[in-house]
Amino acid sequence: MLFREDKFNDECGVFGVYGHEEAANLTYLGLYALQHRGQENAGIVSSAGDGLKVHKGNGLVADVFTETDIDRLAGTSAIGHVRYSTSGGSELRNAQPFVVDYSRGSIAVAHNGNIVNSLLLRAEFEAYGSIFQSTMDTEAVVHLIASCKERTLTDRIIYALGRLRGSYSIAFLTEDTLVAARDPHGFRPLALGKLKGAWVVASETCAFDLIDAEYVRDVAPGEVIVIDETGLSSYKPFAPVEHTPCIFEFIYFARPDSAIFGANVYDIRKEFGRELSKEHEVEADVVIPVPDSGVAAALGYAQAAGLPFELGIIRNHYVGRTFIEPKDSIRHFGVKLKLNAVRKVIEGKRVVVVDDSIVRGITSMKIVKMIRDAGAAEVHMRISSPPTVCPCYYGIDTPNRDKLIAANQSVADINNYITSDTLGYLSVEGLYRAIDRGGGKDLVEPSYCDACFTGEYPVDIFKESKPPQLVLFK
Amino acid sequence: MLFREDKFNDECGVFGVYGHEEAANLTYLGLYALQHRGQENAGIVSSAGDGLKVHKGNGLVADVFTETDIDRLAGTSAIGHVRYSTSGGSELRNAQPFVVDYSRGSIAVAHNGNIVNSLLLRAEFEAYGSIFQSTMDTEAVVHLIASCKERTLTDRIIYALGRLRGSYSIAFLTEDTLVAARDPHGFRPLALGKLKGAWVVASETCAFDLIDAEYVRDVAPGEVIVIDETGLSSYKPFAPVEHTPCIFEFIYFARPDSAIFGANVYDIRKEFGRELSKEHEVEADVVIPVPDSGVAAALGYAQAAGLPFELGIIRNHYVGRTFIEPKDSIRHFGVKLKLNAVRKVIEGKRVVVVDDSIVRGITSMKIVKMIRDAGAAEVHMRISSPPTVCPCYYGIDTPNRDKLIAANQSVADINNYITSDTLGYLSVEGLYRAIDRGGGKDLVEPSYCDACFTGEYPVDIFKESKPPQLVLFK
Amino acid sequence: MLFREDKFNDECGVFGVYGHEEAANLTYLGLYALQHRGQENAGIVSSAGDGLKVHKGNGLVADVFTETDIDRLAGTSAIGHVRYSTSGGSELRNAQPFVVDYSRGSIAVAHNGNIVNSLLLRAEFEAYGSIFQSTMDTEAVVHLIASCKERTLTDRIIYALGRLRGSYSIAFLTEDTLVAARDPHGFRPLALGKLKGAWVVASETCAFDLIDAEYVRDVAPGEVIVIDETGLSSYKPFAPVEHTPCIFEFIYFARPDSAIFGANVYDIRKEFGRELSKEHEVEADVVIPVPDSGVAAALGYAQAAGLPFELGIIRNHYVGRTFIEPKDSIRHFGVKLKLNAVRKVIEGKRVVVVDDSIVRGITSMKIVKMIRDAGAAEVHMRISSPPTVCPCYYGIDTPNRDKLIAANQSVADINNYITSDTLGYLSVEGLYRAIDRGGGKDLVEPSYCDACFTGEYPVDIFKESKPPQLVLFK
Amino acid sequence: MLFREDKFNDECGVFGVYGHEEAANLTYLGLYALQHRGQENAGIVSSAGDGLKVHKGNGLVADVFTETDIDRLAGTSAIGHVRYSTSGGSELRNAQPFVVDYSRGSIAVAHNGNIVNSLLLRAEFEAYGSIFQSTMDTEAVVHLIASCKERTLTDRIIYALGRLRGSYSIAFLTEDTLVAARDPHGFRPLALGKLKGAWVVASETCAFDLIDAEYVRDVAPGEVIVIDETGLSSYKPFAPVEHTPCIFEFIYFARPDSAIFGANVYDIRKEFGRELSKEHEVEADVVIPVPDSGVAAALGYAQAAGLPFELGIIRNHYVGRTFIEPKDSIRHFGVKLKLNAVRKVIEGKRVVVVDDSIVRGITSMKIVKMIRDAGAAEVHMRISSPPTVCPCYYGIDTPNRDKLIAANQSVADINNYITSDTLGYLSVEGLYRAIDRGGGKDLVEPSYCDACFTGEYPVDIFKESKPPQLVLFK
Repeated sequence: MLFREDKFNDECGVFGVYGHEEAANLTYLGLYALQHRGQENAGIVSSAGDGLKVHKGNGLVADVFTETDIDRLAGTSAIGHVRYSTSGGSELRNAQPFVVDYSRGSIAVAHNGNIVNSLLLRAEFEAYGSIFQSTMDTEAVVHLIASCKERTLTDRIIYALGRLRGSYSIAFLTEDTLVAARDPHGFRPLALGKLKGAWVVASETCAFDLIDAEYVRDVAPGEVIVIDETGLSSYKPFAPVEHTPCIFEFIYFARPDSAIFGANVYDIRKEFGRELSKEHEVEADVVIPVPDSGVAAALGYAQAAGLPFELGIIRNHYVGRTFIEPKDSIRHFGVKLKLNAVRKVIEGKRVVVVDDSIVRGITSMKIVKMIRDAGAAEVHMRISSPPTVCPCYYGIDTPNRDKLIAANQSVADINNYITSDTLGYLSVEGLYRAIDRGGGKDLVEPSYCDACFTGEYPVDIFKESKPPQLVLFK
Repeated sequence: MLFREDKFNDECGVFGVYGHEEAANLTYLGLYALQHRGQENAGIVSSAGDGLKVHKGNGLVADVFTETDIDRLAGTSAIGHVRYSTSGGSELRNAQPFVVDYSRGSIAVAHNGNIVNSLLLRAEFEAYGSIFQSTMDTEAVVHLIASCKERTLTDRIIYALGRLRGSYSIAFLTEDTLVAARDPHGFRPLALGKLKGAWVVASETCAFDLIDAEYVRDVAPGEVIVIDETGLSSYKPFAPVEHTPCIFEFIYFARPDSAIFGANVYDIRKEFGRELSKEHEVEADVVIPVPDSGVAAALGYAQAAGLPFELGIIRNHYVGRTFIEPKDSIRHFGVKLKLNAVRKVIEGKRVVVVDDSIVRGITSMKIVKMIRDAGAAEVHMRISSPPTVCPCYYGIDTPNRDKLIAANQSVADINNYITSDTLGYLSVEGLYRAIDRGGGKDLVEPSYCDACFTGEYPVDIFKESKPPQLVLFK
Repeated sequence: MLFREDKFNDECGVFGVYGHEEAANLTYLGLYALQHRGQENAGIVSSAGDGLKVHKGNGLVADVFTETDIDRLAGTSAIGHVRYSTSGGSELRNAQPFVVDYSRGSIAVAHNGNIVNSLLLRAEFEAYGSIFQSTMDTEAVVHLIASCKERTLTDRIIYALGRLRGSYSIAFLTEDTLVAARDPHGFRPLALGKLKGAWVVASETCAFDLIDAEYVRDVAPGEVIVIDETGLSSYKPFAPVEHTPCIFEFIYFARPDSAIFGANVYDIRKEFGRELSKEHEVEADVVIPVPDSGVAAALGYAQAAGLPFELGIIRNHYVGRTFIEPKDSIRHFGVKLKLNAVRKVIEGKRVVVVDDSIVRGITSMKIVKMIRDAGAAEVHMRISSPPTVCPCYYGIDTPNRDKLIAANQSVADINNYITSDTLGYLSVEGLYRAIDRGGGKDLVEPSYCDACFTGEYPVDIFKESKPPQLVLFK
Repeated sequence: MLFREDKFNDECGVFGVYGHEEAANLTYLGLYALQHRGQENAGIVSSAGDGLKVHKGNGLVADVFTETDIDRLAGTSAIGHVRYSTSGGSELRNAQPFVVDYSRGSIAVAHNGNIVNSLLLRAEFEAYGSIFQSTMDTEAVVHLIASCKERTLTDRIIYALGRLRGSYSIAFLTEDTLVAARDPHGFRPLALGKLKGAWVVASETCAFDLIDAEYVRDVAPGEVIVIDETGLSSYKPFAPVEHTPCIFEFIYFARPDSAIFGANVYDIRKEFGRELSKEHEVEADVVIPVPDSGVAAALGYAQAAGLPFELGIIRNHYVGRTFIEPKDSIRHFGVKLKLNAVRKVIEGKRVVVVDDSIVRGITSMKIVKMIRDAGAAEVHMRISSPPTVCPCYYGIDTPNRDKLIAANQSVADINNYITSDTLGYLSVEGLYRAIDRGGGKDLVEPSYCDACFTGEYPVDIFKESKPPQLVLFK
């Protein structure tokens, strides 16, 4: 076979708008604001009521679209997508939105999340003679819609979504209708907003801020929202299950100026830091973050601990995709290209350095070394989340268990490996305390998916670390 | 709908090789030699027995493939395709070979010809829930293969081909098998060759010459050739119909150094010129061709008429795809960029100018004007084919009937329009006499499709000048 | 004339290395670290003792150089340059290093600063028949060197530099020698370092950190350092003048992790904030920076004022060079693409927002508006430098006086214009107090060029806001 | 030194227009027609009276200029250049026209030919302190103009040209004046034409044909034509010398539809073939050319010999700059990619094959082999010029003497090497007889430079095969 297994979308950003003269341009800006959710490809599909127009490309939103491209994407509705590719390759055929023809016309789809039963669905379709042209799990969705005999688009989409297991915050566009939906567990965020008379949906509210749209509410877990010329209709066609939005969006993935799951990300992160300070107090002179993801937690830590906060590590904003390494290898090279310690802040000090998580441990080791080289007396690493012990199957690109250092080593061993004086992770309990405090009354979700920290996967088919082995009749 | 109707491949080139260490490089060279059959996109798919590798791009073969690309296309079998796009747009998603996954694995397809019932097939598949991702008629073929329940690849391909109406010279590649087939009418050419122990197939034999392969025979109309590790097997699974290879390949499309349908193209063209000379004698001083397609016929004309042959029009070899026209429009501009008359050859002479065909008449008019401006005393236009009165549905990009000047005007009117002193077309009878003489004993086909000259279409569903209107249940 | 007037290099970064096997790769990395000093073009010239090799291109260092380019730049010495273009155009012919041939061989030059008498020098050379091919002030330097009759390279360079007025931190490379020099006033920074046996020079020490080079000392104002196979020689051939390094490097231009003029930039900026807090106290709930340039000063302000510091404005790291603005213009658009307020941090608060400077006032106005829109009760703008009242002629790209808001309006008027509740600038005295405190005993320079704040230009020919009008005999 | 020696322009095309609203567009078209004279870079400089505008790029004219580029090149006068690069590298800095600033303003220059004393001039200028930025011999010209104290542009250009030795057909453009000149020997062609009220100059008349300009006359050897608002003025400021236009332009370089040195190239080439037929008669069945350069001579040969002419070798029009060669090397590969024999024309025949010249002999050997492989009974190679025994220093890119097969081997040896049955070169006497006959009364030049065949170089400093060794005081 050409395609050994479906690839997951993992971290992606979705945007949609219905009923605005500049639908494509707004979508372009929305994707601009969601760029941190995926830098491999970007795409927009628009409709002026007479067929779908599409433009996709590899690279950043600012590079993929020219003014001419946006002008060609005429119409009053549009959906867009930015994609992060987990697998080196950033093949354009996997770029979204997907656009296909089927018996009832054309449909486009933009998806954030992972369909964990996509291989089973693919096998089922192939058994009936269907062909697949991409390697993405999302392609199963359009096969489901196309094969469904229901008469209305809404029914066909509900049928298709009902067959999916896993995570999806997803937008569909046809000539005359925009549909946005979120899986019953509500793994990934999806927000609904308004811009004058137009409806907008986006993975994060920072996209609304950019276009001056007003946040209305989150698309609810299990909700299907259909927007057409008759207005917005909401469906909740699926049996309710426990809501388990992804706790890692708070920790790392979302932008700090976004509100997701009802809470402001920056606030939550600060509370992680405060809680971390309580759980892992240490005598120190200064608290510094690993920029940029550790900044809010480090601020919270410093405030709670009554220690000075300093930007002791500076980030180089011009780091490209690749760089040319000298043959006579320079120590800690990759990290130094991106980060540099400020000697004056660190020299002779007992330093608390706050990061959001540790994956393989190599980067943390290089950061500790860099801080020591800058003259630190002590280096205390503090992590604003619990040890990452299990991979994610719902949309975050974490490596397999054998590469996750915390899945295989104790905290003491990790401390040893990364050469810090002390190492402290936030506890799972502390994590929830912080979320409660940070989200307060706004928080819409009482429970979360914390499988990466606990191994308790809400969608049970995937408790194993490997996808199911399919025996294809070949 | 996104895609209003299927697009035809029209003029394309197909190449395949099985059993050679440098399969992809040979395919690249084969496509290089077939470049005249299509300049919009090029693609190669190869197999080393462990999945299919693909590289496609817009532009000429020399630009689409780098050495790295060819190196990546590892394997001992490969197929390739060059495509001419009839519709301005040269969208990459329509580039071939198509590669898809279905229940039995992966398959790639490269097609030259038009599937005239592709819209019907597409509608049928969409009715069963299939989705389409390109706008090409060829996509129907893989849906047919994927939906077929036959156990062997050969049976599935035979089933699929049996459902097609129209023209196809086609190559399929799977991990371990190369299949080449030609429709029962044999519209488009396809030759079989050998290179040391490897089998090769190509649209024209000029591709064999370049790689030092030996021409074995044509793939016969209605023949399906399957090449795998057990060797070559030939199937003739379809009820025999009259063979009607495309007569226009002789007139214009094939390269003069190729042999197609058993005969050398250059020879045949010279005979067209000889016959034309007999049918439309004129007192003249010199015979000149419109380069390059009119050269062989002009030579034949001159030799038969006993008149001197001269290259009175020079072709600029560096003409790009586009040029920037001055606002203060220069007369006959487009033609002059490509062709220029040699005044010394023409001045004061009675000139016979030989071209292969007249489509809209505008180019011919500009050429006559250019020759007169260079001082010709008389200009006698001679066309080495009969008047083109009907469009082609089997793979040549001719415009609709209303734009074909000969479909709407008499020869006398055309002569008037293009401002020549006399105008002579080769008769249909003369055409066949010339082919008989030029092909001689080598000629394998006694009959041809001459629908563009006679309106007699061999595949009857398409006698109308428009594709059938499908009412899609939307 | 083609070139109306010389253009200035303005903000640029210079790097050089002598005596290292991987000279070009180290230079590439050095430029990577200096990228913030110029993003328009980048270039490297190297020598292996047998001629100079050059590669230059438009864009970021990571995009201009491929591994092949670096491999081709063989040799053990190299100089490099990143350039900021003040004039929209980023013409490659103005990219540095310049490489030219003259009677004694080849020479390359990389320059940061402005030669204020370049038009006079150009006129003089043109009067003797010289031709100019770029529009850069730097071209005058090589004409001076080439026309000089001195026998040694050092003498020729000293002669040439002696004719220059203005600012230069400059590196020269010949086949066998690297020369680095700084103008007698020492306007722009230039540091000397060591990497194992090799000498390195760089505009800022952050370039040394990346390659693990050790900072040795600053190149002194008026010093010419010559490095060849005999080692390093230092010359101080010019009459001493007051040292006036650019105070704006501390305020905005240098990277906070660099040490320049003997002091750490981050430290100095924090002291600006502390001093600002004393000079412009205000009752407030939170201190936020305009990222990234205002961060250190905001931290200093918050610490001195005993107010909480928060990252209340988030910066989008994926902002491209251009974006497509909607026709139905969205308010404050340009700034929102780059910055977004964190509502939860700001809502209902009395906010102190700290920025490094105000140029035209428009951006400040948009930032104030953004903070108010996020719900701030009060917005107090604090600027960590005095009002910018005069343009810079020594290497910072400030607009003309008529576009500098502080040159034309009072602080009260500016406060009104940008719609803040209060506005406070750091005083010139406060600026110096902060530098004294921040630099402490390390500070090597007692005096600075503060002409942008005071109008007191150290190089007197340029007290006027326009370059001298030259009457060319044409 | 960076630049070891000046490079020559060799084969180039020059175009200029004065007094037309669409000067740049006409120049673009003129370069399009002159593309065969150089495919490495192309450039246009235009003037609207307020400075010079320039656009240059690597590649073909059609690729270098977009419509926007042409629109930007506003003005009523323009000059353009296409360049062939002899040295792999096609560095943009060597692209012409050169544009420089000097004391009297800006000037652009476009040059076809070689300045054989350019190294001496360069050394002289460098001795006075001038710097050089390109590696082209042409740069010396602008230094001469810039250093000249004469008051008028005309006088300065005449002074500069008077210092040059070698060949030049050259055009200069300033804000208000177009100057065209040809060296006193008249090595390279340059024609003067008229287009409505505008003057045009071009290397060949085929450029006039494309834009419907009327050929007026050749610029005479040693003539300097100055065109400004007062009209056209002609100067003949140099002492007359023997006129020695390049005979190789007739043989190979010019386009057959051009008239140069008063004669039509196609006519002359046919006469070469006729003469060749007389000098080297052979019993044969068919005459075929090596396309395209051998076509006219082959026609002349066939007509004079009374043998049938056939296009027995077909040229692939889609040959790119590079191709990917298979590792398992195919015989005669490079030639086959470009040329392919028509077996039916050749099989069993005694073939006369006509080519314009033999340089190294390898290509001829491959062609003979290709014809034999196609079944020829005998292969008789006929060359429409004398043996090429000496390199050219005046603008044709011939290799050094040691690589010229005829410089080192007898005709019998070459016949042996290329494996033809017989080999016949045209004699020098025959060459002149043919020119006389072909040019007739129109021929303006009685004598030619035939140094490549005779070793008699008209400009004596260069009788040696190497440029003079300059000892630079370094």
